[in-house]
Amino acid sequence: MDAIKVIEIKKSVFEDNDKDAENLRKELKDKGVFLLNLMSAPGSGKTTTLIQTLNRIKDKVHVAVMEADIDSDVDAVKIREATGVSSIQLHTGGMCHLDAEMTRQGLDNVELKDVDLVVLENVGNLVCPAEFDTGAVRNAMILSVPEGDDKPLKYPLMFTVCDLVIINKTDVMPYFDFDLNRCKEYIHQRNPKAQVIPICAKTGEGVDAFAQWLLAEVNAWKNN
Amino acid sequence: MDAIKVIEIKKSVFEDNDKDAENLRKELKDKGVFLLNLMSAPGSGKTTTLIQTLNRIKDKVHVAVMEADIDSDVDAVKIREATGVSSIQLHTGGMCHLDAEMTRQGLDNVELKDVDLVVLENVGNLVCPAEFDTGAVRNAMILSVPEGDDKPLKYPLMFTVCDLVIINKTDVMPYFDFDLNRCKEYIHQRNPKAQVIPICAKTGEGVDAFAQWLLAEVNAWKNN
Repeated sequence: MDAIKVIEIKKSVFEDNDKDAENLRKELKDKGVFLLNLMSAPGSGKTTTLIQTLNRIKDKVHVAVMEADIDSDVDAVKIREATGVSSIQLHTGGMCHLDAEMTRQGLDNVELKDVDLVVLENVGNLVCPAEFDTGAVRNAMILSVPEGDDKPLKYPLMFTVCDLVIINKTDVMPYFDFDLNRCKEYIHQRNPKAQVIPICAKTGEGVDAFAQWLLAEVNAWKNN
Repeated sequence: MDAIKVIEIKKSVFEDNDKDAENLRKELKDKGVFLLNLMSAPGSGKTTTLIQTLNRIKDKVHVAVMEADIDSDVDAVKIREATGVSSIQLHTGGMCHLDAEMTRQGLDNVELKDVDLVVLENVGNLVCPAEFDTGAVRNAMILSVPEGDDKPLKYPLMFTVCDLVIINKTDVMPYFDFDLNRCKEYIHQRNPKAQVIPICAKTGEGVDAFAQWLLAEVNAWKNN
């Protein structure tokens, strides 16, 4: 296999991120490409969730993955080895988030004419990524059980901007003080429209529901 | 009990954070006050660890706690209810870290003449807080087992700036693919001098070692 492509992302020089994001979304719409921005805290299981999901959808849509990290290319390598899906690594040079222009720098390295769906795995961080519209069609985030059910109270913006909240590591629920109903309540206080899907990426439980959500969103974007 | 004091922290207008941090450290030295900057990802167990530790040291040193959060005062309330230790809440107004000037705004609300030790619980984030010297005498961070042993590879600066890495939630080690020796190796690749203390804040296992480290550091700062 070729070496993983590593893109060194430069800080955006444009000031109007919201406008850049809108322009990027329009461009993606014209090209029939759906962009998912996947966010979470460090270690919540984004990469494992992606691997499980990609293996369920890769025969139905053409997918590419962009893995953002401050350093290392372990995630991009993992994704490609476990799924065969085309994956590039974005290095953010110490920066804690991606904005629309930085996302575009990544997309410039993806053959957009060959794909229906690009998944952007954002930097592991519940604060800064929520503040910057990347130009994605949908935002999703993963909250893992060990992090606690009170996170929507502490990181309100993240839960406000996400269309979907995936609750991962449900297999360890018995070992943690995590109340799924209380967590859903906190999420809906922040964002009444947010969908919530509990999964266990390790065993694959619940991942079908996420895969179905994603395929439906991609189809709606391409066909409406 | 009185209501928890909530301080709305304003963004720093000073540009030279390193100089501000040095000045703050000197001032704390003159006053005989030790400041610990405690960092981690969301949900790693900072507050539970603090509660266990405060209950072990509060009869030996005079302590105050500053809880930084984007929103809510749940942590400050928890700390005070569980330990009786004086605790204030710092609201960062959406910001993802504290710098030295913001830390000073918090310290202005602590009776420094009555305390030996102030613990600053920084915003839950492995990226931005590592970039800003708060003026603390020591930096410590908590990595919890469910986050994975590869975090020193992905968040290098955090592990480089910390004098102590606490590895929390060791009780769930059997349920996660976490290799303590591999993790220590990754930490020491980033920072050969970092001390590593494994604990389980829920059961209290290992917390004595952290409490002893902290007391020794406070005494060294006050007496040298």
